[in-house]
Amino acid sequence: MSLNTFGHLLKFTSWGESHGPAIGAIIDGCPPGIEISEAAIQRDLDRRKPGQSRFVTQRRESDRAKILSGTFTDEAGMLRTTGTPISILIENEDARSKDYEEIKDKYRPGHADFTYQQKYGIRDWRGSGRASARETATRVAAGAVARLVVPGITIRGSLVQVGPHKIEYKNFDWAEVDRNPFFCADAAAAKKWESYLDGVRKDGNSAGAVIEIVAENVPVGLGAPIYSKLSADLAGAMMSINAVKGVEIGAGFASASLAGTENADEMRAGPGAPYFKTNMAGGILGGISNGDPIVVRFAVKPTSSILTPRETVTVRNENTEIATKGRHDPCVGIRAVPIGEAMMALVLADHYLLHRGQTGREAGIGFPK
Amino acid sequence: MSLNTFGHLLKFTSWGESHGPAIGAIIDGCPPGIEISEAAIQRDLDRRKPGQSRFVTQRRESDRAKILSGTFTDEAGMLRTTGTPISILIENEDARSKDYEEIKDKYRPGHADFTYQQKYGIRDWRGSGRASARETATRVAAGAVARLVVPGITIRGSLVQVGPHKIEYKNFDWAEVDRNPFFCADAAAAKKWESYLDGVRKDGNSAGAVIEIVAENVPVGLGAPIYSKLSADLAGAMMSINAVKGVEIGAGFASASLAGTENADEMRAGPGAPYFKTNMAGGILGGISNGDPIVVRFAVKPTSSILTPRETVTVRNENTEIATKGRHDPCVGIRAVPIGEAMMALVLADHYLLHRGQTGREAGIGFPK
Amino acid sequence: MSLNTFGHLLKFTSWGESHGPAIGAIIDGCPPGIEISEAAIQRDLDRRKPGQSRFVTQRRESDRAKILSGTFTDEAGMLRTTGTPISILIENEDARSKDYEEIKDKYRPGHADFTYQQKYGIRDWRGSGRASARETATRVAAGAVARLVVPGITIRGSLVQVGPHKIEYKNFDWAEVDRNPFFCADAAAAKKWESYLDGVRKDGNSAGAVIEIVAENVPVGLGAPIYSKLSADLAGAMMSINAVKGVEIGAGFASASLAGTENADEMRAGPGAPYFKTNMAGGILGGISNGDPIVVRFAVKPTSSILTPRETVTVRNENTEIATKGRHDPCVGIRAVPIGEAMMALVLADHYLLHRGQTGREAGIGFPK
Amino acid sequence: MSLNTFGHLLKFTSWGESHGPAIGAIIDGCPPGIEISEAAIQRDLDRRKPGQSRFVTQRRESDRAKILSGTFTDEAGMLRTTGTPISILIENEDARSKDYEEIKDKYRPGHADFTYQQKYGIRDWRGSGRASARETATRVAAGAVARLVVPGITIRGSLVQVGPHKIEYKNFDWAEVDRNPFFCADAAAAKKWESYLDGVRKDGNSAGAVIEIVAENVPVGLGAPIYSKLSADLAGAMMSINAVKGVEIGAGFASASLAGTENADEMRAGPGAPYFKTNMAGGILGGISNGDPIVVRFAVKPTSSILTPRETVTVRNENTEIATKGRHDPCVGIRAVPIGEAMMALVLADHYLLHRGQTGREAGIGFPK
Repeated sequence: MSLNTFGHLLKFTSWGESHGPAIGAIIDGCPPGIEISEAAIQRDLDRRKPGQSRFVTQRRESDRAKILSGTFTDEAGMLRTTGTPISILIENEDARSKDYEEIKDKYRPGHADFTYQQKYGIRDWRGSGRASARETATRVAAGAVARLVVPGITIRGSLVQVGPHKIEYKNFDWAEVDRNPFFCADAAAAKKWESYLDGVRKDGNSAGAVIEIVAENVPVGLGAPIYSKLSADLAGAMMSINAVKGVEIGAGFASASLAGTENADEMRAGPGAPYFKTNMAGGILGGISNGDPIVVRFAVKPTSSILTPRETVTVRNENTEIATKGRHDPCVGIRAVPIGEAMMALVLADHYLLHRGQTGREAGIGFPK
Repeated sequence: MSLNTFGHLLKFTSWGESHGPAIGAIIDGCPPGIEISEAAIQRDLDRRKPGQSRFVTQRRESDRAKILSGTFTDEAGMLRTTGTPISILIENEDARSKDYEEIKDKYRPGHADFTYQQKYGIRDWRGSGRASARETATRVAAGAVARLVVPGITIRGSLVQVGPHKIEYKNFDWAEVDRNPFFCADAAAAKKWESYLDGVRKDGNSAGAVIEIVAENVPVGLGAPIYSKLSADLAGAMMSINAVKGVEIGAGFASASLAGTENADEMRAGPGAPYFKTNMAGGILGGISNGDPIVVRFAVKPTSSILTPRETVTVRNENTEIATKGRHDPCVGIRAVPIGEAMMALVLADHYLLHRGQTGREAGIGFPK
Repeated sequence: MSLNTFGHLLKFTSWGESHGPAIGAIIDGCPPGIEISEAAIQRDLDRRKPGQSRFVTQRRESDRAKILSGTFTDEAGMLRTTGTPISILIENEDARSKDYEEIKDKYRPGHADFTYQQKYGIRDWRGSGRASARETATRVAAGAVARLVVPGITIRGSLVQVGPHKIEYKNFDWAEVDRNPFFCADAAAAKKWESYLDGVRKDGNSAGAVIEIVAENVPVGLGAPIYSKLSADLAGAMMSINAVKGVEIGAGFASASLAGTENADEMRAGPGAPYFKTNMAGGILGGISNGDPIVVRFAVKPTSSILTPRETVTVRNENTEIATKGRHDPCVGIRAVPIGEAMMALVLADHYLLHRGQTGREAGIGFPK
Repeated sequence: MSLNTFGHLLKFTSWGESHGPAIGAIIDGCPPGIEISEAAIQRDLDRRKPGQSRFVTQRRESDRAKILSGTFTDEAGMLRTTGTPISILIENEDARSKDYEEIKDKYRPGHADFTYQQKYGIRDWRGSGRASARETATRVAAGAVARLVVPGITIRGSLVQVGPHKIEYKNFDWAEVDRNPFFCADAAAAKKWESYLDGVRKDGNSAGAVIEIVAENVPVGLGAPIYSKLSADLAGAMMSINAVKGVEIGAGFASASLAGTENADEMRAGPGAPYFKTNMAGGILGGISNGDPIVVRFAVKPTSSILTPRETVTVRNENTEIATKGRHDPCVGIRAVPIGEAMMALVLADHYLLHRGQTGREAGIGFPK
């Protein structure tokens, strides 16, 4: 993981700005021979696409992914990865740079305008440039490729909190996720969020959110102590998503309040392999997957771009105020669901290869031996 | 960050097991010419050292750091770094492997026993081997070196929650941290924790904790978008500490409940440079430091090694139970304070060098230009 | 340096196959604020372009470089780097895959056909796929950017041997390089090579070559012992070019025959700084630049694709023979000159940033202090 | 490969100076379960050890390797790797720093004194500090571990040239290597070199050398195009050895003089798999191993430390001269043989793991399928 590249062995590099001609992803280190298609990538991209409900930005992007390298049609007519870098390009279609002219001269509170300017001495202010969440489209494209790497794995996400309103876990049903505009597994919560967010928008305000990502059928043994623990890499991955301010695994922050007797998941002998009676650990022990579902939650701050005027300064250090127009997500957390899934896929696929390389063992339960 | 190495440009590698002859740290990429001493490293190590109160493990380690390379005494008699790898060795003195004989055959709930065995097919069960928190002594040693790299920076930490009991931020006083056995900035809270933890110990149980680390005088501009955002690297760093299950920055998870108007820190013109009216961001915007204090909190689960018997399985997948004896911290979160400080120092020093390398600019406010 | 990425801090990633829709380069870690233009990149690309004389492949590629990200037009109308990844795309225009149908089933001697098939189990046989020298266009594009990073540096190359015919160093004149189709600094040698290579082509054969790359005005202090010595990185860089089988620095292999008295460059006091009386070292001592010109030579094997039939096997392990048609360079060494320059630029720019990051010192002579 | 770390997945980090208390190696990423012993490491170290003949330095070092971590004695009493970092420590015993007092103030021609001082602004002048060939002992220790990683592989080296005197390949016999003080496979050449080198020493001079390293039984498929080609990594590895100025693979520089018909190794169908009629390629095609022996040669310059006085400057830029006393190898190339073997082992083991990780295929001939 360095600068614009993510991963140890499955390396994903992203490039591109919000209002440049295109953005793109390079996936290097993908194993050869894997069936792949632009359609499979598109399926994931379409879930993240803007403009799909009134609760997300109205920017119109078809987000069409083109594979430019790294694949080959085999004798059977199947498109397969070749082990060389997979380059995916997504054109920017609906950039309206003039919506952003005002921020040329003003720093938007909560945005990266001030820090980019200070760090680099130059700043592409059009649509936030590189700091725009538009970059996350390349993550979703790369994540779609990563999903193909670990056999049998299932990665799903749900919004579990919008503003102060949490879901009820007793209502949790993955089937609901595709039936509401929030990727929410609790139909009742989704219903309530609609009116809540309508109010937020009407007020020229915005809302934060919490997203939960769950990976199932994860082989035992993924994760590389000490500084590339599966948990550490997942924390870094999720925290790298725009607007994320917190990450937790399993019981997370709640584990601080628990007693040792409550928190350590007891084990029982199962047929062929032991199992855990509970999953406070969120599927990770000592930085290594234990075979239970991996459960990660992350908090997204409320969109900083709001219509309500806020105090700020100009690039010349003069007091002013700003009301951010343009087309923004009232709750950026919503579209963070497919992004979180993508990051989970990238981390797991990377560690799957790393484990295989380092140990020469297929990950999975080898118990009892 | 890969396997046992941490950092992009200031690379810290750790090695060693709990009951081997020694543990150690290699710090590679440290700038030349920096004044250094074993005493400076020892100061930090002594804060993490076991056996300093009844609330931490009674293992007796002098944790004496020896510098084996990377330094040179200059003409003026001052020991200085030379730009070559700094090797620090700490001997293990009080390893009692026979305390652990029982776990040769049993997996301890909440521990890495099962996952290490499954991943590697072999496991050093003596004192948890590589998975032991003993490894964190090398982090503290490396962190002491990292503190020397960024001029003027101050990094401090406080325990802010033990079990369900939080501090009151209105009582927060850094001066208190060294006056109680908990590194706690709230004297009143520390008082209450004493009796709480005595009870926990008496019950053969353990408690979780939350730690807050604050870095002050951090230059503006540290952080490398997109995948090495300062926030992402800090999240990975803290999550790599043993028993950590959650990390948050600034307002963190609480930001999910806030409105956009509350969360985005407004700016005002100051003398020579602007300032932020609040610090919900925890000093980081768009993954880059904004000059405000960097505030990170992380949650540590309750110690998994407890005297109360728990259900588990043998390495042959047979039901059994285990009560973990040995010398353990009833609340591992306590000693996590200096460890968290060390990880903060490592991340900031690394990004300080990275910023200088990539931009050719000294980090710091260049405003207005 | 890993898989398809080159560099420590200035990271260049290349992607693309010979007969895919396009190839490309991502340059990550380029400092912000540098003036850049597609024209500057095009100048270098045009020197490597195929079809410019009868001694190189007749494939027709305009090799037009498009910058897709990482730049911004500043207030003064100047295009500048922003510190974000620079994505450069070059379309493939003249791919004739059917020229290669025969090699679908046969391994060409001297080519990567056999090894790619064995490594990956799948192989894009069209124009050698990823193993094609077409990939080197992306190196030249990236090298053009790298040239902009180190102020004042000059990097030039010359062909110094074709087949068994070497140049005379007494004739060496950089001005000649652009006056013959061989990038040759010795006009007389270039003359002789013309008729030699015409003969080689007529015979359905091919010739090897040696290239010399010289970098002048290199700051003192570049290079990172031990495993990223400037010499080691240059050796790896040049050896990564297609068909290269040997690399040497300064006196190189000849130094093995010299006495210590002849080989170690003596030093003399100069105005403000010392100088070396000779440059057997090729500008590098202990892996670090010493201020003298950096001199690297590398050997390119004769093109493996020749019209003369050679014995080989089919992909089913049956004896056969093959005469490689298609459009090939009779001496691939010729176009290796701009490629070698590009690799030199990439290595030096990378180490320039690395030095600045690690030491906080501008590279250059700080003598006497 | 970065600073003091070598390798992609099998990462070897070295630390230590010539006259510090110790030097050491960390091998990270070594697969678990491999049988290991200090004796196996010692065998290789003993071959590199100083003081074994009058042709090498008389420094007296027992070079005793101690394993401090990363291993565990299994139930059967066998010491095995655990997958955690292997730390190896070698104490410095016979450092005579006062032999070097003179060079505190003078730069030795051909040495790294000047460049280290310029790069770092501080320099451990005792025995060349970090730039000393003493560091190579840690490479040999790490290489001994690496040899254990790739099953069935054989790595051997021979000195093939001393000064201008080359071996005759028709005399080549591996069995001779251990029968002369030069690791030379040609007994007749070794004989002649004795008197040649005696003369060189008597003259207060030194000699260069060429070393050939051959790896046999290398699986097909090792190597990671484009920037981590097996050839590129080997070139970087060998060039990183002290005093090396050239590296070539297979026919190497000689291939530049060959015709395409001579150079490309023809193939024939063999039982179960094809074979190559010749090995001009040195076992590598397109950066990937082809199953033939990997043949690498590298040139070592004559020892720069000689008794004959040479012109140089002081650290204050004043003319002076220096005759290097101390205990030096008249031909450093001799002890470079085990070092070159170690680097070959490190590169191959690293790529063995990388191949396994990336492709999920065991390296080896999968032909015909």
